[in-house]
Amino acid sequence: MTMNRRFLLGAAGLALGAPALQAAQAAGTPAEIPAPAGKAPPPPPVTRILAEWIQGSTFDSLPENVRREGVRSLLNWVGVAIGGSHHETVDIAVSALQPFSGPPQASLLGRTERFDIMNAAFLNGVASHIFDFDDTHLKTIIHPAGPVASAILAYAEMKPVSGKAFLDALVVGIEVECRIGNMVYPNHYDAGWHITGTCGPFGAAAAAAKLMGLTVEQTVFALGLAASQPVGLRESFGSMNKSFNPGRAAANGLFAAILAAKGFTSSEQMIEVRRGWAQTISTKQDWSQITEGLGSRYESALNTYKPFACGIVMHPTIDAAIQIRDEDHVKPEDIRSVDLKVHPLVLELTGKTAPKTGLEGKFSIYHAAAVAFVEGAGGEKQFSDRAVNDPRVVALRQKIHPVVTPGIDAAQVDMTVTLNDGRTLHRHIVHAIGSVEKPMTDAQLEAKFKDLADGVLPAAQADHVLTLCRSLPDLKDAADIARAGVQGA
Amino acid sequence: MTMNRRFLLGAAGLALGAPALQAAQAAGTPAEIPAPAGKAPPPPPVTRILAEWIQGSTFDSLPENVRREGVRSLLNWVGVAIGGSHHETVDIAVSALQPFSGPPQASLLGRTERFDIMNAAFLNGVASHIFDFDDTHLKTIIHPAGPVASAILAYAEMKPVSGKAFLDALVVGIEVECRIGNMVYPNHYDAGWHITGTCGPFGAAAAAAKLMGLTVEQTVFALGLAASQPVGLRESFGSMNKSFNPGRAAANGLFAAILAAKGFTSSEQMIEVRRGWAQTISTKQDWSQITEGLGSRYESALNTYKPFACGIVMHPTIDAAIQIRDEDHVKPEDIRSVDLKVHPLVLELTGKTAPKTGLEGKFSIYHAAAVAFVEGAGGEKQFSDRAVNDPRVVALRQKIHPVVTPGIDAAQVDMTVTLNDGRTLHRHIVHAIGSVEKPMTDAQLEAKFKDLADGVLPAAQADHVLTLCRSLPDLKDAADIARAGVQGA
Repeated sequence: MTMNRRFLLGAAGLALGAPALQAAQAAGTPAEIPAPAGKAPPPPPVTRILAEWIQGSTFDSLPENVRREGVRSLLNWVGVAIGGSHHETVDIAVSALQPFSGPPQASLLGRTERFDIMNAAFLNGVASHIFDFDDTHLKTIIHPAGPVASAILAYAEMKPVSGKAFLDALVVGIEVECRIGNMVYPNHYDAGWHITGTCGPFGAAAAAAKLMGLTVEQTVFALGLAASQPVGLRESFGSMNKSFNPGRAAANGLFAAILAAKGFTSSEQMIEVRRGWAQTISTKQDWSQITEGLGSRYESALNTYKPFACGIVMHPTIDAAIQIRDEDHVKPEDIRSVDLKVHPLVLELTGKTAPKTGLEGKFSIYHAAAVAFVEGAGGEKQFSDRAVNDPRVVALRQKIHPVVTPGIDAAQVDMTVTLNDGRTLHRHIVHAIGSVEKPMTDAQLEAKFKDLADGVLPAAQADHVLTLCRSLPDLKDAADIARAGVQGA
Repeated sequence: MTMNRRFLLGAAGLALGAPALQAAQAAGTPAEIPAPAGKAPPPPPVTRILAEWIQGSTFDSLPENVRREGVRSLLNWVGVAIGGSHHETVDIAVSALQPFSGPPQASLLGRTERFDIMNAAFLNGVASHIFDFDDTHLKTIIHPAGPVASAILAYAEMKPVSGKAFLDALVVGIEVECRIGNMVYPNHYDAGWHITGTCGPFGAAAAAAKLMGLTVEQTVFALGLAASQPVGLRESFGSMNKSFNPGRAAANGLFAAILAAKGFTSSEQMIEVRRGWAQTISTKQDWSQITEGLGSRYESALNTYKPFACGIVMHPTIDAAIQIRDEDHVKPEDIRSVDLKVHPLVLELTGKTAPKTGLEGKFSIYHAAAVAFVEGAGGEKQFSDRAVNDPRVVALRQKIHPVVTPGIDAAQVDMTVTLNDGRTLHRHIVHAIGSVEKPMTDAQLEAKFKDLADGVLPAAQADHVLTLCRSLPDLKDAADIARAGVQGA
């Protein structure tokens, strides 16, 4: 029992032994109780609240839609990890780390090498973010699966766990990661942190602590050690360092849980106190984002999957361009100009006017719009060096004019195409394909998976891995997915 | 050549090819050139400036006092790492990580196990901070050697390097770490970051990049990857997580350099730009702390060593208590009260009134003063569970009354002891033993080393390790120190 918890129990007049969450809810979170003038109420003991919830969750307690979205999250993640597995970034990391790896405990999806579980978690995490094609929690722009799935799939290869237990841990990890993100977003992200890398270690630690069966106290310490290892700055975007961040977040969270499992201690209240994580790393702390609806309302059910291989803020633009191209039969050479009304984040994140590489193209709204008109798609092939240097794309991107416009949110775009003959065509995208409101269908997700695996695994093997992912809750051994997903399996 | 550098070169009208530091100095740092009203000048390209300086440094270019302090830093660090090597914290970490370690590439000082270099760097770094008895850069409260020496001693066991090259790398790493600390201190520390853990990865990466002979570009990327992995929050103080931080900082910096050496990329300007390290992690950025006197004035020459096994802010108090006890022949039972005038940090960091464990005692000014009066010392034995629960110490600590007093800086204390007979005794400590102004002598450092090694290594072996440390610049193979410092060597 922590000091904080004792205080809250006392204040709320609850019997000793009630879980921290009940106590906090009875005492009220800062959002619910008006603070006395000039003095903020003490934060609820969210570190312990999360630890109790993590260890209390069971597969049976998960709503059906949460289970379903968990399976889709894993399926999408396995696909992007296989797809990215032979990128130069991964090749370099594999060759750099091989001399230092421990026993060959875990697989690299899409490859042949085996590493100890912490290095495998790092490498699969890197691979899964290579194409910026992974899942997205739109409220925070966190890519939830990377840190969490990378950590526990590696762990599951060492210590077999059922598909149900794995799915429960995955959901728990994503929930912790996204709720912590909600607590500090947007200030924390605006400051410059790569929020997937900073919140990711919590998700990885939570999921690993769950699979390892840690006590609540050990889980509190695992979260504390995870809090001590945030990863990533937004300045890394456009370099290999961006993919580094979810990978290192996975490894850091796993490292935290492995130490805590043996009795390594941390603070009892690392997330909430004055010189703990939230108040040090962010100017905003909305504690109610942790406590409200915990165990009944799932952030993981809001996970989304990208139809396009780039940052989410460019999706409405690509969607609009493909609609105009295909529905209005517009050819690139007929276009005089493309005017885009966009949210400020679009230019902040993807304002590169003259990208030279495929990777830089992912940070160029100019390229994204142009290539979508030219090729009618936004897959990985459209963010290759070839596509970025295609003269038709280069010519068209000079004609793309994004303007930051009040009233357009980050999920929207307003596109007006003026043709050489003077005609104008218009699309206002409120919910792009891949959003919560207009999700990718299972069939679309599976097609995306096969596209990603194409060239890495034989088609029959890709189908087999897909089947295993789809039937995760029925697997006796969740790590079958990892073993089936390597080259030559 | 980075964009920033090109800009500065253009602004200063310098020939292309001049090093970034010269360009920045010619253009002026923010501290030297008044900013146009309402607009700050762009930061100098400090990431590249540091990378060029790191790779340009040589043993021959180091002033004699810098070499000497480098040797003392290493000697002190080896001593504290040996001394802490059998603490429960290290035992737990060793047993937790053993199943995942790579080849037995590197030693653990004071122990028998061998680990891959990244795990060894972590574990030696943890051990060296256990007693809070390591070196201190007083301007920032960074403990510089932990992250740096832990990383490169492990690396040196895998790839032999001369003592001179090792010493140069050590100095370079400490310099980078402390200058980056100066750039953001005190705001960054005040916010809640454990500055040794956040600046440490830069020092470890810099030193490793130097020993590995990376190019300037690779070194820029190593610094970028190090920037992506800050470690540690002040809330961890008082738990095992505190020692975790310098250990993980060492491993993170080494990890960064190992990846960069194989071509893993990052930003070209990760430290200085808007969403880079300094502007994301701190509200203060004094770029001149990086550039001014780089290569002529050495922060590493300001390194200090603790005569007492606790945080530096308690040292003046212990020094004063021992002086009054020994010079005025005061017995604990004669004391009615002890009034301390102290800096605010003293109560902020060490305000625990009723510590129960040795570790908690390190965060209690009440305990520190009491035990110094009772036992006339402030070594590791005085911060044991035994000492903290000694009834004479417990009784006396109730009589210690620290009061935050304007005009008393963090290195000072003003102590007035009132005896039961009404007499008062007084000491005003301006520079405690162990400060830059009143450094420990070589003989005192060596006595401290032997005390720490006592009980871990036989006396003759400890003497041998001490001799190797003292003669570092003459060693053909710096890793002789690591191999000589293990049990059974």
